[in-house]
Amino acid sequence: MNAHNLIDLAELSKEDLDELIQLAGVIMDNPLNYMDDCHGKIIATLFYEPSTRTQMSFQTAMMRLGGRVIGFDNPVNSSVSKGESLKDTIRVISNYTDVIVIRNPYEGSALAASMFSKAPVINAGDGGHLHPTQTLTDIVTLWYEKGRLDHLTIGLCGDIKNGRTVHSLIKTLSKYEGNRFIMISTSQLQAPQYIIDVLEESGCEYSFSNSLEESISELDVLYMTRIQRERFASQEEYEAQKGIYVLDTQKLEKAKESLKILHPLPRVDEITVDVDYDPRAKYFEQAEYGMYARMALIVKMLANNSQKQLPPKIESTHNEMCRNPRCITSTESYLPNLFTTGEDGRLVCSYCEHELEK
Amino acid sequence: MNAHNLIDLAELSKEDLDELIQLAGVIMDNPLNYMDDCHGKIIATLFYEPSTRTQMSFQTAMMRLGGRVIGFDNPVNSSVSKGESLKDTIRVISNYTDVIVIRNPYEGSALAASMFSKAPVINAGDGGHLHPTQTLTDIVTLWYEKGRLDHLTIGLCGDIKNGRTVHSLIKTLSKYEGNRFIMISTSQLQAPQYIIDVLEESGCEYSFSNSLEESISELDVLYMTRIQRERFASQEEYEAQKGIYVLDTQKLEKAKESLKILHPLPRVDEITVDVDYDPRAKYFEQAEYGMYARMALIVKMLANNSQKQLPPKIESTHNEMCRNPRCITSTESYLPNLFTTGEDGRLVCSYCEHELEK
Amino acid sequence: MNAHNLIDLAELSKEDLDELIQLAGVIMDNPLNYMDDCHGKIIATLFYEPSTRTQMSFQTAMMRLGGRVIGFDNPVNSSVSKGESLKDTIRVISNYTDVIVIRNPYEGSALAASMFSKAPVINAGDGGHLHPTQTLTDIVTLWYEKGRLDHLTIGLCGDIKNGRTVHSLIKTLSKYEGNRFIMISTSQLQAPQYIIDVLEESGCEYSFSNSLEESISELDVLYMTRIQRERFASQEEYEAQKGIYVLDTQKLEKAKESLKILHPLPRVDEITVDVDYDPRAKYFEQAEYGMYARMALIVKMLANNSQKQLPPKIESTHNEMCRNPRCITSTESYLPNLFTTGEDGRLVCSYCEHELEK
Repeated sequence: MNAHNLIDLAELSKEDLDELIQLAGVIMDNPLNYMDDCHGKIIATLFYEPSTRTQMSFQTAMMRLGGRVIGFDNPVNSSVSKGESLKDTIRVISNYTDVIVIRNPYEGSALAASMFSKAPVINAGDGGHLHPTQTLTDIVTLWYEKGRLDHLTIGLCGDIKNGRTVHSLIKTLSKYEGNRFIMISTSQLQAPQYIIDVLEESGCEYSFSNSLEESISELDVLYMTRIQRERFASQEEYEAQKGIYVLDTQKLEKAKESLKILHPLPRVDEITVDVDYDPRAKYFEQAEYGMYARMALIVKMLANNSQKQLPPKIESTHNEMCRNPRCITSTESYLPNLFTTGEDGRLVCSYCEHELEK
Repeated sequence: MNAHNLIDLAELSKEDLDELIQLAGVIMDNPLNYMDDCHGKIIATLFYEPSTRTQMSFQTAMMRLGGRVIGFDNPVNSSVSKGESLKDTIRVISNYTDVIVIRNPYEGSALAASMFSKAPVINAGDGGHLHPTQTLTDIVTLWYEKGRLDHLTIGLCGDIKNGRTVHSLIKTLSKYEGNRFIMISTSQLQAPQYIIDVLEESGCEYSFSNSLEESISELDVLYMTRIQRERFASQEEYEAQKGIYVLDTQKLEKAKESLKILHPLPRVDEITVDVDYDPRAKYFEQAEYGMYARMALIVKMLANNSQKQLPPKIESTHNEMCRNPRCITSTESYLPNLFTTGEDGRLVCSYCEHELEK
Repeated sequence: MNAHNLIDLAELSKEDLDELIQLAGVIMDNPLNYMDDCHGKIIATLFYEPSTRTQMSFQTAMMRLGGRVIGFDNPVNSSVSKGESLKDTIRVISNYTDVIVIRNPYEGSALAASMFSKAPVINAGDGGHLHPTQTLTDIVTLWYEKGRLDHLTIGLCGDIKNGRTVHSLIKTLSKYEGNRFIMISTSQLQAPQYIIDVLEESGCEYSFSNSLEESISELDVLYMTRIQRERFASQEEYEAQKGIYVLDTQKLEKAKESLKILHPLPRVDEITVDVDYDPRAKYFEQAEYGMYARMALIVKMLANNSQKQLPPKIESTHNEMCRNPRCITSTESYLPNLFTTGEDGRLVCSYCEHELEK
């Protein structure tokens, strides 16, 4: 693995991903061989918004490698509440630790952190933008449950419009040959144009469905997500449709024996509890695969990290500033303005990937 | 020790208890022999309500065994606040850890957790119901301070009506021969009928007293508890009686030299601070015994736990549902209805031990 | 090092300080030699008010020595909120741990804690009173950045009146020969009389300045601190002066090449971010030196600590009680009244060092 940080899963090549998948499996089969692998090493889990699930997964991964964990989960208790900049926090804490895991509600915050960190940075969720270790978890689960990442018919069900984990999964799996995507949702919550663009470009087959019941028999993989009441135009519409996107044992009767059901968790009621006892339900195992995926990632990152060093200063590429209010640049004014030029010639913010509005 | 989980101390035989007591002593005498006993192992302390004392005691116990700790103490920060069920949290976290320690304000919550956990579960307090490791702490303290658990005159002072630790201690010590209980309290806060039933059945001598001063000279053990203002019918009655249940050096003058004073802590003002310097005061040592007791428990549990496995699905035994609003079944609707039939033929909820009202 | 606790840096001799400085350097050069030095040991970080920076520095220090950490950072979640006294908390937790690190908003709280602790106590900040490990950090930074602690011209800039870290640094550096202090501030925020007394007694040269720009060229060391709007008599005065105490690259042009800039952090805007890239800026390195300083302190303290023992009971020296509302004695009524007699014959509280008002 060549990457120093993990900000966006798209930065990893298929070879990098394959390396991580293989290593996760080796650790899973021989956990005792790795129990002291990170002895004497420390990761910091800096959670500017709470996410117990993700934080515990990283903590456990590091502890199962024999390493130590510092961090916070409560921005109110941190120096942040005294008005300290992200930069200063990262400069100080990267002196203490060997890896920084950051979750922050602002888009591009992990990239910003990586500019000031002597230690490698892992993005554990930057607002609605990216959450690469969730997708890594999904990929590792698929590999060990299906034996392959290609030639799969993948159903994605629920909120395809807003779900960052769904977008990231589509982007990643569309790089593998022969995959076919069925996006099961209401018309309001269907895939955004940029995801359609990704699919078009990849050459993968894809289709839309508004019925889980009708589509389920075709699927090798069913990726369920939460669908939130507030996403619907009216209460009536929600009531009318909500049953369609609840997976229950009745709908499962039509599914293949070899189907694997995934869910990023936490679930609310989009999968009924009796499905948990169906051998095709893999969402709890998925959480365990996530732990091994994160162990593999930490091992690789620490193997890379020969000498802790402050990254060189980056200068602004443009005078314009991003105007996305959820972009990290909107709160951390010292950050350089960084843009790339999109296909249509418009500027795209390197932090949040929003197009600069004219 | 045969038990896989520790939900209720009553599940342990006298032989099990004796094993734990002996092991606590061995660890106390040779802590260095155990400092790496749990190397590579993890416990999760899931505290749905804060209890710094109990949580730190478990954390320290695991760390002194060379193991690691994950967990939370703040339900607001946890996935719980996103509406995740207890079941899903336990399913995920029991993938990460080797033992789960749970504290939850609902009665029966630890039993419920154990139904979905691949790892053994320790009940660290389920509402006003049970708190078995506190009683284990008390028993270990008595054994090493008195040299025996039988033929003791035990004074229990304060709130005997509501104190779950007092009930559990009476239930446990009444199994040993020749013990005699003096319950020192106001008439409003005296022992409930079911504790009297336990004592009657055990054949132990017992009596009631409303004066600590009058009873103290007879005691081998004095177990003090907090007595709360709000438990009294009126402010006058509280004022009139409160001094009677405060242990001070003057009252101690009448006590035996061999008396041992215990208190589950935290105390408020029911023991004056000058008593702390009396060699008979053992409540701070008790906290230390509690650490060794928990170390012994963790060692035994991990020795048992050969292969992590999901428990088999449990089906409802009855159609009725428990109506106790503090029972875990009142918030976690997927739990099976489980009842046993009491002596009078009424149904008793297996989670909270409340009788089902007709 | 002879001291059992570290409550006040003034308790350490120059030899003690030198020992700590040298050891910090040895650890810095050979961290792997110390990675298991505290294997099997535990520190407790009891933070009655949050200070993520300081707490993480201690946690990291202990973890880099192979030890374990328990503690809290949120008094709301702790037994404290159930009305437990400081004494009881310390009695219990000092049974669990090998060192106690305490931060508490009341002045003298660390001294009070040390009276009831079986384990050595480190003061991590007791209100506006003392914060010895910050000064230890400053001293270690100076030694390794300047190569000496004497014959330095030290500029202290910002709030010299209220800054406890500035006072402590002056007190410590005034013990070394040939140091010269320039206190750069507004007249309202200049050094208090007792600091002037310390300087007079030490024989060190000192002067006052109200312009950073004018004084900067003379300095070997510039110690910046936060200057708070609310300290000024009026908004106008703040606006008029605030730029004077902001360090920017323009002011730095007049400074020596060998200048070293320190800041206890977190900064707000008293140093502009472009200064961070100047090689003279050492405030982020200072945080790293702080970690090594704390590692050295913990190693020394644990080496001292042969047998854990409760300190002997201390009796009041006087009947009078301290009347400082921020003194720990104002909330913990069981503490003995302890006073020393100052030079003018007035009584000085041993906890908070306030003179007893007649």
